[in-house]
Amino acid sequence: MTSTDTAQSAPPANGNRAAAANLSLRRVGIDTWRENVVYLNRDCEAYRAEGFQALAKVEIRANGKRILATLNVVDDASIVACHELGLSEDAFAQLGVPDGYLVAIAQAEPPESMAALFRKIDGERLNREEYHAIVRDIAGRRYSKIELTAFVVACNRGELDREEVFFLTDAMVASGRRLDWHEPLVVDKHCIGGIPGNRTSMLVVPIVAAHGLLCPKTSSRAITSPAGTADTMEVLAQVELPFDKLAEIVRENRGCLAWGGTADLSPADDVLISVERPLSIDSPGQMVASILSKKIAAGSTHLVLDMPIGPTAKVRSMPEAQRLRRLFEYVAHRMHLSLDVVITDGRQPIGNGIGPVLEARDVMRVLENDPRAPNDLRQKALRLAGRLIESDPDVRGGDGFGIARDILDSGRALARMNAIITAQGSNGFDHNHAKLGAITFDVLATRAGVVAGIDNFQIARIARLAGAPKVQGAGVELFRKLGETVAAGDPLYRVYAEFPADQAFAQQAATKATGYTIGSADDVPHVFVEF
Amino acid sequence: MTSTDTAQSAPPANGNRAAAANLSLRRVGIDTWRENVVYLNRDCEAYRAEGFQALAKVEIRANGKRILATLNVVDDASIVACHELGLSEDAFAQLGVPDGYLVAIAQAEPPESMAALFRKIDGERLNREEYHAIVRDIAGRRYSKIELTAFVVACNRGELDREEVFFLTDAMVASGRRLDWHEPLVVDKHCIGGIPGNRTSMLVVPIVAAHGLLCPKTSSRAITSPAGTADTMEVLAQVELPFDKLAEIVRENRGCLAWGGTADLSPADDVLISVERPLSIDSPGQMVASILSKKIAAGSTHLVLDMPIGPTAKVRSMPEAQRLRRLFEYVAHRMHLSLDVVITDGRQPIGNGIGPVLEARDVMRVLENDPRAPNDLRQKALRLAGRLIESDPDVRGGDGFGIARDILDSGRALARMNAIITAQGSNGFDHNHAKLGAITFDVLATRAGVVAGIDNFQIARIARLAGAPKVQGAGVELFRKLGETVAAGDPLYRVYAEFPADQAFAQQAATKATGYTIGSADDVPHVFVEF
Repeated sequence: MTSTDTAQSAPPANGNRAAAANLSLRRVGIDTWRENVVYLNRDCEAYRAEGFQALAKVEIRANGKRILATLNVVDDASIVACHELGLSEDAFAQLGVPDGYLVAIAQAEPPESMAALFRKIDGERLNREEYHAIVRDIAGRRYSKIELTAFVVACNRGELDREEVFFLTDAMVASGRRLDWHEPLVVDKHCIGGIPGNRTSMLVVPIVAAHGLLCPKTSSRAITSPAGTADTMEVLAQVELPFDKLAEIVRENRGCLAWGGTADLSPADDVLISVERPLSIDSPGQMVASILSKKIAAGSTHLVLDMPIGPTAKVRSMPEAQRLRRLFEYVAHRMHLSLDVVITDGRQPIGNGIGPVLEARDVMRVLENDPRAPNDLRQKALRLAGRLIESDPDVRGGDGFGIARDILDSGRALARMNAIITAQGSNGFDHNHAKLGAITFDVLATRAGVVAGIDNFQIARIARLAGAPKVQGAGVELFRKLGETVAAGDPLYRVYAEFPADQAFAQQAATKATGYTIGSADDVPHVFVEF
Repeated sequence: MTSTDTAQSAPPANGNRAAAANLSLRRVGIDTWRENVVYLNRDCEAYRAEGFQALAKVEIRANGKRILATLNVVDDASIVACHELGLSEDAFAQLGVPDGYLVAIAQAEPPESMAALFRKIDGERLNREEYHAIVRDIAGRRYSKIELTAFVVACNRGELDREEVFFLTDAMVASGRRLDWHEPLVVDKHCIGGIPGNRTSMLVVPIVAAHGLLCPKTSSRAITSPAGTADTMEVLAQVELPFDKLAEIVRENRGCLAWGGTADLSPADDVLISVERPLSIDSPGQMVASILSKKIAAGSTHLVLDMPIGPTAKVRSMPEAQRLRRLFEYVAHRMHLSLDVVITDGRQPIGNGIGPVLEARDVMRVLENDPRAPNDLRQKALRLAGRLIESDPDVRGGDGFGIARDILDSGRALARMNAIITAQGSNGFDHNHAKLGAITFDVLATRAGVVAGIDNFQIARIARLAGAPKVQGAGVELFRKLGETVAAGDPLYRVYAEFPADQAFAQQAATKATGYTIGSADDVPHVFVEF
């Protein structure tokens, strides 16, 4: 029998060394993007005494508050002097005390979830508590970029089983605000992305709000695409509104179309995206957790999820779409969210315009029942709106489309949109006098035939090079869609730019590859989807 | 039949926008530790025009040279003004032009190996060219911390088969300098680590050098342990020597014991370690690649690798050790390195002292054949030296130990060590008057019995808290080893510290857990090892 020997040492020394608050806080005007960084001068007594490793995780304490930060050593006393402790913008904001405040620094205890992180790196399955611990630490900015990346990569490649995805989603909802609209039915629509011009939300919201359903839609700005819903809506109205104002607008109009950044929902999601994006990581588990956690945090009870498939969409095949759909449905079920996944046609962009003004023009034309409105955008929006309307217990299954169409044809959707625009703050857009980029060039067909392929990625890329979404009037206007016949020399699309440099880059890309494939009618790919 | 339509556009615009060299370079005194960071002011024209993402990878060009760097946006014009471009220390050094030079910035083309990195993140097997491309980009500082971490985690968990480990090792050797000593036999010894006090190198080198073998040993400083070979040697002599001086010392004395940092061998290894360490990642593949690439780059032809096993060693069991040995042997074979892996007793620290001065004292006592010299250190060093001596074609298998013992007993090893110490620059150490930390406390046995377990981790931790290796005279001196009988109240070990705070932290840890387990003779674990 063994006993682990506990110490009976010589008399103890004079007390513990408490971390002395002896460094003057200095805000360092560097944006390190969602990672807390602390700057210490190499000759600083605290740095030398503690023997911090480069990139060590340290703990900064002030006024009863603690934050973790990664250490960068500074050799320039004008940035941080020997008696000072510098914090990057995010870290300074998180600590919440002013410049000059005396703060303490100490070796950091590793975040609580470190052991769980290491287990996941080793390929182990984690339990509910471990996901909650990890996400709490991520949302609390206690993970360095290195630890974040390790977590994201370890979760990649189908390493999460469906229950783990549920744990992760649940943890992400728990990590931030969760809105409660105090109504039994709060509907929302989301698309997994990847299809340019797919601005159905801006039609679905006024339609279902006019029907009477609560649809408080918050959206993001584009990160890699030529326009996000928030960018396109911003052509019509203000989108960055304080949360109280949004809540008021929703109460009065049953809907809104705003930027989601002010509500701070799912903060862990934003931090995770900052490392997923550079690595182009978009694994099913993380996609499900990201999308569902944001929608649940926003207070949705019923969600319609648009999942386009096609050769240049995010999801390439029906079997892949079915797997992803089942994962979404499982997690939504565990989270008590009513979810309807609709697999749609992702073979080409939706609508004619790609870029904020061009897309806003398409949307307003549909709402006004203008003959120039793109019919594919109209039809898709009606079908999605119809599905959402069918979450109303008073509506029979199958009737949704007709109700949505009536709302649109009658002008009630337009009226509701105008009310929302006015409430958010109109930007005075007139689709008949849309301000488009002054420098244009057309891309022409080099041979006769049938449009057999349109590369979503390439078209989106060209639109971005042309300046979208930063330049609102920049983008691409498609003249021909899949299956249409063209003659040699027919214009396929027009590129709008504001600056010669943007136009040159876009032209360069379009010359390398237009994104269009001309062939015969047999070459047009088929997808068997709902719509 | 389809043809992808190439553009026939309207007349091209006025030329391309070449990246104009229009920003004044400014060295920013921030050490971002092996990651290139570029600092741009948020109001800077180039930043706004390019629409860089936060943390974007950008390319900086000057004087025909290009580097990649991660973007941090700055809000403080005193750090970087609007017409300036700031670079962190490493990046500034890599670009190699002075302050004030006009440089250009552009979106970075992703590093050549990005596609291979993404494939590895997806769990694919990579080929030889892909490993070379990745390691070239790592050594060239073209990977951000995020990409580095993704690579390391994706390679973790036995994801690399043995041939991939060879590819990685080969690529790491190709990425840096490779020394050539112009002799057919260049011997070296390495330990995989994890055992405090295991300073056999400082005995093996003088012994085999006295025999006549070339043994140019470079070592690292401790990162997480209480002393690295370089730290302990530094008690005796200077270790940070310019490479030319080292080469001269080796030529004259057949050996040296220096710090490896000046030679810039295997640069990719140092970069990888900067992310592996915070994540405690030490997978077999990466361990083999790291150790063998460094030894091969250092010009070794024959290597003896010490692999201790035990309940608190890095490798816990014989089957695990055998797997690791086979991996080392396979890669060494492919790299044409003669390798002898020796599985040794890792149940407890080697020698009596842990910490630079205490270990240096042990080493000098062994060399002087002092009766107080720890016998386990002496025996282990002789066996390892014997193995190395047997790489000499004139020595028969089995004779090595005897030759080594004669060299030691006769004082020739001591003479050679003193010559090396003088050549590197003596620090005047006298083991009879070793300067140890003035503040001590003893840890006593609380019950009678047999020492049945010594926790390597805990003892190392206590020695570090006491101040080792930064405080040379700090550390732990063991009085009792495994299998020895103790009475209640007998001192097990003594802790030396220089500063009260260090002593307090060490005492706190020792009180929580001494690291010693007292039981009966049956409780002592057995390992069946070579020695």
